[in-house]
Amino acid sequence: MADIKKILVANRGEIALRVIHTCKELGIESVAVYSRPDADSPHVLHADESVFIGEAASSESYLVIDKIIDAAKQTGADAIHPGYGFLSENASFSERCEKEGIIFIGPKPKAISLMGDKTEARELVTQAGIPTPPGLKSELKDIEEARRVADDIGYPILVKAAAGGGGKGMRIVHKKEEFEASIKAAKSEARNAFGDDRIYIEKYLEQPRHVEFQIIADTHGKILHVFDRECSVQRRHQKVIEEAPCAILTPELRSKMAEAAIKAARACDYIGAGTIEFMVDKNLDFYFLEMNTRLQVEHPVTEMISGVDLVALQILVAEGKELPFEQDDLSIDGHAIECRIYAEDPADKFLPSTGLLKKHRVPTGSGVRVDAGVEEGQKITINYDPMISKLSVHGPTREIARKRMLRALDEYEIAGCKTTIPFCEFTLNHPAFINAEYDTHFVPDHFTPEKMQPKQDESDVALAAALLKNAQSGESSGTKQKALVDDHREASQWWKKRRA
Amino acid sequence: MADIKKILVANRGEIALRVIHTCKELGIESVAVYSRPDADSPHVLHADESVFIGEAASSESYLVIDKIIDAAKQTGADAIHPGYGFLSENASFSERCEKEGIIFIGPKPKAISLMGDKTEARELVTQAGIPTPPGLKSELKDIEEARRVADDIGYPILVKAAAGGGGKGMRIVHKKEEFEASIKAAKSEARNAFGDDRIYIEKYLEQPRHVEFQIIADTHGKILHVFDRECSVQRRHQKVIEEAPCAILTPELRSKMAEAAIKAARACDYIGAGTIEFMVDKNLDFYFLEMNTRLQVEHPVTEMISGVDLVALQILVAEGKELPFEQDDLSIDGHAIECRIYAEDPADKFLPSTGLLKKHRVPTGSGVRVDAGVEEGQKITINYDPMISKLSVHGPTREIARKRMLRALDEYEIAGCKTTIPFCEFTLNHPAFINAEYDTHFVPDHFTPEKMQPKQDESDVALAAALLKNAQSGESSGTKQKALVDDHREASQWWKKRRA
Repeated sequence: MADIKKILVANRGEIALRVIHTCKELGIESVAVYSRPDADSPHVLHADESVFIGEAASSESYLVIDKIIDAAKQTGADAIHPGYGFLSENASFSERCEKEGIIFIGPKPKAISLMGDKTEARELVTQAGIPTPPGLKSELKDIEEARRVADDIGYPILVKAAAGGGGKGMRIVHKKEEFEASIKAAKSEARNAFGDDRIYIEKYLEQPRHVEFQIIADTHGKILHVFDRECSVQRRHQKVIEEAPCAILTPELRSKMAEAAIKAARACDYIGAGTIEFMVDKNLDFYFLEMNTRLQVEHPVTEMISGVDLVALQILVAEGKELPFEQDDLSIDGHAIECRIYAEDPADKFLPSTGLLKKHRVPTGSGVRVDAGVEEGQKITINYDPMISKLSVHGPTREIARKRMLRALDEYEIAGCKTTIPFCEFTLNHPAFINAEYDTHFVPDHFTPEKMQPKQDESDVALAAALLKNAQSGESSGTKQKALVDDHREASQWWKKRRA
Repeated sequence: MADIKKILVANRGEIALRVIHTCKELGIESVAVYSRPDADSPHVLHADESVFIGEAASSESYLVIDKIIDAAKQTGADAIHPGYGFLSENASFSERCEKEGIIFIGPKPKAISLMGDKTEARELVTQAGIPTPPGLKSELKDIEEARRVADDIGYPILVKAAAGGGGKGMRIVHKKEEFEASIKAAKSEARNAFGDDRIYIEKYLEQPRHVEFQIIADTHGKILHVFDRECSVQRRHQKVIEEAPCAILTPELRSKMAEAAIKAARACDYIGAGTIEFMVDKNLDFYFLEMNTRLQVEHPVTEMISGVDLVALQILVAEGKELPFEQDDLSIDGHAIECRIYAEDPADKFLPSTGLLKKHRVPTGSGVRVDAGVEEGQKITINYDPMISKLSVHGPTREIARKRMLRALDEYEIAGCKTTIPFCEFTLNHPAFINAEYDTHFVPDHFTPEKMQPKQDESDVALAAALLKNAQSGESSGTKQKALVDDHREASQWWKKRRA
């Protein structure tokens, strides 16, 4: 297959800019698409070309297959990178690209639809010998059989929609007596949300941790993994803080899970970058959760510890080339943490806090990576995910990465909206996080909003007045705040362990 | 020696913030000092405490030893980090700190003064068996002897001030007939600039490349090197673009030069981070140039390829601790390039271009590090070095780092002053740089200002108008510019070579 010459990025925000970065570095031309409110977003400003595709609503712009295909044809793009979200896991879109002779930078439609259907995926991986949580082996058809299975594995039980995601159509059943009513409620919710009321049941795991494996597969049958990430700090079943590698995996468990991840990818003839998500329980038993057939939001932490450029690898395998390394060539270098900076109010149930981004000064310095899709002066609206940026840090050890993240969060200046920064600071300073003894219930179990430290410049008007006054008097408005980090040093670790 | 608890940073701008970053990450409190115009600089805003030390002129603030010592006592700082420039290579300052019981984070006064005197340094390293350029082995006392030496080594000859630096008191003598007049001129210039008219003469090297070695030494006699940097892209004898490692060193030459660098450090009982600068000629013969007894501006490229935190190591050895690794534990990981972004006009002899920094949006993404000491809305004045930031990139290979730098430079948005960005883009796209066939004469030999690409938003008023118009029409103002990089891909190298 020939080299790709021009890539249309069918996305917006930080991930669109992220893909454009690699395009530039590879000498590939890039095409941005944009809705009306995104006309002057960084992804548009930094692409080589751009195409207007419609109004604010995703259903009128980023989700309209015809418009994306038209834009690709109009600009002569020979490939489309879907990013994450929007059309990235839409099998019909991947199929349509194929039909139009445009390279879809992602897996084949078959793999997308197989893994998109939770019950099909579950059956597939079970056949491949990968552990799934105890439960029905396929979708629930017979309520009596389901009841027997539930009795067998014991309560609490999880009821999940086959077409589900993001916590919709999901119910925890604590007692036998609630079983039938919960099934009905879940079915009805799933029907409304996905137009598909198929459900299945499984054991509800205690103290579950979300651990996932990055895999990359080429068209020549080579499937490799790029280690693991832990993403247990979540709110509304969505990740906020991720780290790589997962702190609690032993080398043995890591290779066992990696082997399972590669098996799952092989079972669906996977091509490209994908993620196999597992739940790990308190006994360190692991269970397949689902596979995401696209680049993940949290991929930077993997890039930081492995040195690979996942977007470059996606492009490489989309061109039909062989992966240029073997499993043994990859190694874990230090530790990385990502904090998602959302325009949300952590003190008010993480509700979106939209508005004009009056100030946006990102932290700088060693080991800090920022992926931002918005600029100072832009509006954060309710049209899209309210993400401002992803802040990632890398250090020789987990503890050093944690401290580096705290100093970067402290340095980050945002005005105009509430953000998840105080929540991230709270979490990174919490003993459960420090000791890597946290699970997906971190927020309900530990988060106390009143203990958050407010960011210094949220009242930016007061700050501006102070700046002016001090500039005149020769005095500084620098806050005399204490460092957030403890005085806990590991001098002997202030250099990189080259191989873990 | 006890752990350091509070560090006063006797500097400003990016290097002050750089030191504060590591303080925060180590749990050490930081104290900033500032002159009137720096009252609201990032280094002041991000330090734990700050002390006003005087008016704009360095001679009334950053260079006044008494004021710095007073600030340290007033805030209870137990150590002082001098950064680079200002008092960093002032032996009396180091001595005064010692006398006051404050830890000076740097070498002993003796090492500073030995290496600060070019002829003394030259004699010292010659005794240690390190090659120096052919020439007088000590300062010029007898004009007849000097003339004989000049005849022996052949013209052109370099006449240099013993107390010199930055090109002052330096003369190139092309012909025998100019010899005596040049000596007189250099002596007079040296007397005026340094109050010291001692000079020496040496062979003027052809196609000289500036290659330097980072070393780090503890108080237990361990001296290690952290590889090399090439800093041949200079204007006015000052570096603009640096890379690590130097592309033309063979492993054999690298170890020979590293050995010489360690010998030089040992010869002056060095403690802390220091740099031994060499000239490498077209035959790959190398000669000692000088030793800088402090942290270098360009230290980030070394941190990127080695994984060490040089400031953390400086603090560690200042605390009397042993370096926690051996030479063999260090290895070169990929390649790094730094571009110094100055407020200067490359089209007008690199003259300072001061003014209000109306826009300052730094590039983001993978492998990019920014060290900035100014923020949007601040003024760049003639009081200090007109540096806006240091932009450093890291990649698995030199070519990938080069392309990453080009995309980062392209993404960098600055308005309000001219910058060295177009010069850096010119250089990184020049065959001499691409092929690593450049020397310290790059600017006179190759730089053609008229071939620079202007940055898109230097006329920021026009841009703002376009943005407004397009936001209303739904169209994008994104420039349809072509990628600056060629379509030259090395897909097989898009992952890290873990050990060079």
